[in-house]
Amino acid sequence: MDKIIRVNMTDLKVVTETVPAEWVTLGGRALTSTVVAAEIPPTCHPLGPNNKLVFAPGMLSGTPAANSGRMSLGSKSPLTGGIKESNSGGTTAQQFARMGIKALIIEGHPQEDKWYHLHITMEGVTIEEETETVGWQNFAVIEAMEKRYGDKIGVMSIGVPGEKRMRAANISVKDPDHKIRSHGRGGMGAVMGAKRIKCITVDSQGAGKVPIVDSDKFKKGARAFAKAILDHPITGQGLPTYGTNILVNVLNEAGGLPTKNFRYGQYDRHDNISGETMHDIIVSRNGHPKHGCHAGCIIQCSQVYNDAEGNYLTSGFEYETIWGLGAHCLIDDMDQIAECDSIMDDIGIDSIEGVVTMGVVMEAGVIPWGDGKGAIRLLREEVGRGTALGHIIGNGAGSVGDAYGLTRVAVVKNQSIPAYDPRAVKGIGITYATSPMGADHTAGYAVATNVLKCGGFVDPLSKEGQVELSRNLQIATTAVDSTGMCIFVAFPGLDLPEVFPALTDMIGARFGVDIDPGSFIEMGKEILKLEHAFNLAAGFSNAADRLPEFFEYDPLPPHNVVWDFTPEEIDAFWNF
Amino acid sequence: MDKIIRVNMTDLKVVTETVPAEWVTLGGRALTSTVVAAEIPPTCHPLGPNNKLVFAPGMLSGTPAANSGRMSLGSKSPLTGGIKESNSGGTTAQQFARMGIKALIIEGHPQEDKWYHLHITMEGVTIEEETETVGWQNFAVIEAMEKRYGDKIGVMSIGVPGEKRMRAANISVKDPDHKIRSHGRGGMGAVMGAKRIKCITVDSQGAGKVPIVDSDKFKKGARAFAKAILDHPITGQGLPTYGTNILVNVLNEAGGLPTKNFRYGQYDRHDNISGETMHDIIVSRNGHPKHGCHAGCIIQCSQVYNDAEGNYLTSGFEYETIWGLGAHCLIDDMDQIAECDSIMDDIGIDSIEGVVTMGVVMEAGVIPWGDGKGAIRLLREEVGRGTALGHIIGNGAGSVGDAYGLTRVAVVKNQSIPAYDPRAVKGIGITYATSPMGADHTAGYAVATNVLKCGGFVDPLSKEGQVELSRNLQIATTAVDSTGMCIFVAFPGLDLPEVFPALTDMIGARFGVDIDPGSFIEMGKEILKLEHAFNLAAGFSNAADRLPEFFEYDPLPPHNVVWDFTPEEIDAFWNF
Repeated sequence: MDKIIRVNMTDLKVVTETVPAEWVTLGGRALTSTVVAAEIPPTCHPLGPNNKLVFAPGMLSGTPAANSGRMSLGSKSPLTGGIKESNSGGTTAQQFARMGIKALIIEGHPQEDKWYHLHITMEGVTIEEETETVGWQNFAVIEAMEKRYGDKIGVMSIGVPGEKRMRAANISVKDPDHKIRSHGRGGMGAVMGAKRIKCITVDSQGAGKVPIVDSDKFKKGARAFAKAILDHPITGQGLPTYGTNILVNVLNEAGGLPTKNFRYGQYDRHDNISGETMHDIIVSRNGHPKHGCHAGCIIQCSQVYNDAEGNYLTSGFEYETIWGLGAHCLIDDMDQIAECDSIMDDIGIDSIEGVVTMGVVMEAGVIPWGDGKGAIRLLREEVGRGTALGHIIGNGAGSVGDAYGLTRVAVVKNQSIPAYDPRAVKGIGITYATSPMGADHTAGYAVATNVLKCGGFVDPLSKEGQVELSRNLQIATTAVDSTGMCIFVAFPGLDLPEVFPALTDMIGARFGVDIDPGSFIEMGKEILKLEHAFNLAAGFSNAADRLPEFFEYDPLPPHNVVWDFTPEEIDAFWNF
Repeated sequence: MDKIIRVNMTDLKVVTETVPAEWVTLGGRALTSTVVAAEIPPTCHPLGPNNKLVFAPGMLSGTPAANSGRMSLGSKSPLTGGIKESNSGGTTAQQFARMGIKALIIEGHPQEDKWYHLHITMEGVTIEEETETVGWQNFAVIEAMEKRYGDKIGVMSIGVPGEKRMRAANISVKDPDHKIRSHGRGGMGAVMGAKRIKCITVDSQGAGKVPIVDSDKFKKGARAFAKAILDHPITGQGLPTYGTNILVNVLNEAGGLPTKNFRYGQYDRHDNISGETMHDIIVSRNGHPKHGCHAGCIIQCSQVYNDAEGNYLTSGFEYETIWGLGAHCLIDDMDQIAECDSIMDDIGIDSIEGVVTMGVVMEAGVIPWGDGKGAIRLLREEVGRGTALGHIIGNGAGSVGDAYGLTRVAVVKNQSIPAYDPRAVKGIGITYATSPMGADHTAGYAVATNVLKCGGFVDPLSKEGQVELSRNLQIATTAVDSTGMCIFVAFPGLDLPEVFPALTDMIGARFGVDIDPGSFIEMGKEILKLEHAFNLAAGFSNAADRLPEFFEYDPLPPHNVVWDFTPEEIDAFWNF
């Protein structure tokens, strides 16, 4: 029987509750956003006692469904001031699901000046004072927890930036290889730090299997679903071979690779940082081009990237990170970029917010353009140690822009715009503008249809059709984010008609309910509207759904395009 | 014939325009807010090329009317993101008025990486590259300009924080004694810095008198008006004797003196920093308890405060500054507070934002509570030099709170709450919440009626009548801010029936128009609504009209009161 666990940090008590009927078939983002909207006062301070952290595995997490091992985390974001769902790979979603934990809701604020550690077992949750690992970064915390509890333990932790409540701080999640995945965006690590929880350990010994009501139906769906993933060229070939970093050359070719803090759409040294180059480096150093972020992943877009001596340097090395330090900051050395990636994992900073911020740091003149060693030093010694400059940087691109009085700061709702220039890929610009999450490419990845010609083609340079495209993608993504599925299943989902029926068949079989692609999409609509309503109640107006002003008056080469949507055109997004 | 001067910093051109008919009888805040609302795109970046600076002397500035020498400055505030009117004493309002400059509107952004200096004479405005004083603080700039142009020159300048576009940076205005008054609040210095104007000099040689259409009527009004100011106990006796700092003991007695960053309503060492103590120190060191911020001031609430050796230390030494470093930061040494005040004048930081920020700096643990020497060092060496920590502090209390992830940060619309705790003086809380300017006691000084029993009495601890009180005061203040009058004329205005008719008689006589107290107040209503509408268009929602959450759950001793207005009660403010 699934349960809800509530941990109250004010009185240090744990309560286990039965799952309310209306939450039984929910999971992932649908569940976290439902709880956030129902329980968090929209105008509360995100770092105050009235905010909560809501962890929920996806509907299919813990089942044999391929790529279903992602955990959703909901809260009011200290970065955006709005609702947040941030999902991560790692081991905890599958552990929670098998342990029957439908959601873990962390509430309140400790009254004493102490740090705590939550330990979750089949017996329940204990809240223990934590002293050993306070002030440590994530890799050391994981190592200490494995030493304390054995290497099968699941770990979710924060580094120093999270302890210091920096708004780019993420929550790090141990993956199957003892490395790190992240609830990256929106400053979830700062909320955990405000609640003075250094880490959460998950011991799933004694947990059974996730119950599936209609096993045959499930297996049939799961097979069709897995086959589609493997059949599609992006998930079956492109991502496993080059990782997401295949996109450097694709976006450069499209003129939408934001370069030198969104001044240009192409980077003359794109070859230095491309997926193809990265693949060759990985292979030549005996790394692994393929790697999964959770058990059961059949896409394997991750990798193990070794240094020149063949020692492990980083993994989960994404296009957005490489773009951000590469084209955006003009750092053309892949190893320096990989070192920054590893540091961001270790100290616990969102690697998108972190890299976009670094470009704004260069814009401010704190270090020169292209200074990879400077970036490494700033991350490790300033952000990682929490100096004054570290606090400016660790609070994200908007923070640096505000601190230094800059106007060229690519954020929406104070969250950094990643890797795809909205002037040249207009569909993703609509997603940046309208997503309740703040600028987030994963919220409605219009790049697929604008550039990759997945799900058809909508001209990236034209306004026509972009609002509808982004709307459909955001609705579908909201639904998919509720399943525990990796968002990349959307690629086959857009092109192969069997994917969504297979997915909803698995959900129906899991819970013994009737669900079809139509009702699944309806759920996505409802949740997206609920998130938007939370933001409005938190004080956002339509003006929050806008890109920074400079995109409107500063044309982007080579297409020399500006962001030219009217406010009314953008606001039409919400007409559904 | 009055004129509008437009300075375009993009193409470095100056245009002189005739005054549009609908602006002829406007002045001060009514004119600046009208221009801001008409010409600045509400969603523009405040530090970008589409923001403007609008200087306008009051309707009566330059005339013989007592206390009419204040200049209004309008813009979109980089601190609040909303409309701003910030008015200052000094010499420039009267100079502008006599030179026939109805408004100076500065637009655009220079394209080159250079600093500029505007020089205003009867012949017009010249835009010159400035090299000598770049990187200097305000006292040195004033001295340099007096050397360059003679000691009668009017000066408006920014220090290093303004050059570096810090959002607490003010614009400093030379006063008749070569000291400094300020367009303090809202970060106007950052806007001037963004436009790369280091200083504006005003040479009014050759200017005549301000024309008055009905001289006899004017004189009669002016006499009645001046008599009322001198007759009222606050403006005739309290302020000239003790300055605004008379309020330390008054607010302490009322339990509304925010202490240790708004933890308590009383300060046990209030005697060390009181107006009475200050008066004795000034007299014992051969300073001057009375002093005016502009020619024609008959209240003389300012003073000359000397150091222990009898040398000039500071002037314009206000209650809010002394409260902020005293009770709020627990610095109980008047000389250390005076030194901070002088530094804030010199480097050009709003002395309200600066002191509230210092308490948040202590809250963050950057320096200990009560560390006056530390505060001096931070202001001079960090903010004044623009270090990373200086940028955090120089961007105000909200910036420090965001940087260090704090919840006890007393700001509304990101502007600091001054010197009167809204839980114990509820009328001023409504002003803080609703003023389009952000938290600003001068926008509707309900302390007068809540605590000083001026204009009747409304119980400060009860919600009853506070919204109406604040509304009436904000409307009247908006009107008074348009006249060039010092806001302290409101004290006699609240108690003596002859004041407002005398004021409107002077305005009517000045322009040859019919205006009475009723139509004057109607104008105040219109302008206040216009400002509110600008903010809504800029993206503010009702949720912007709220106090920080901690006031709602943290009771203030000794009365143990919380902020208990419902959102609906606050929003009723705008029903007029």
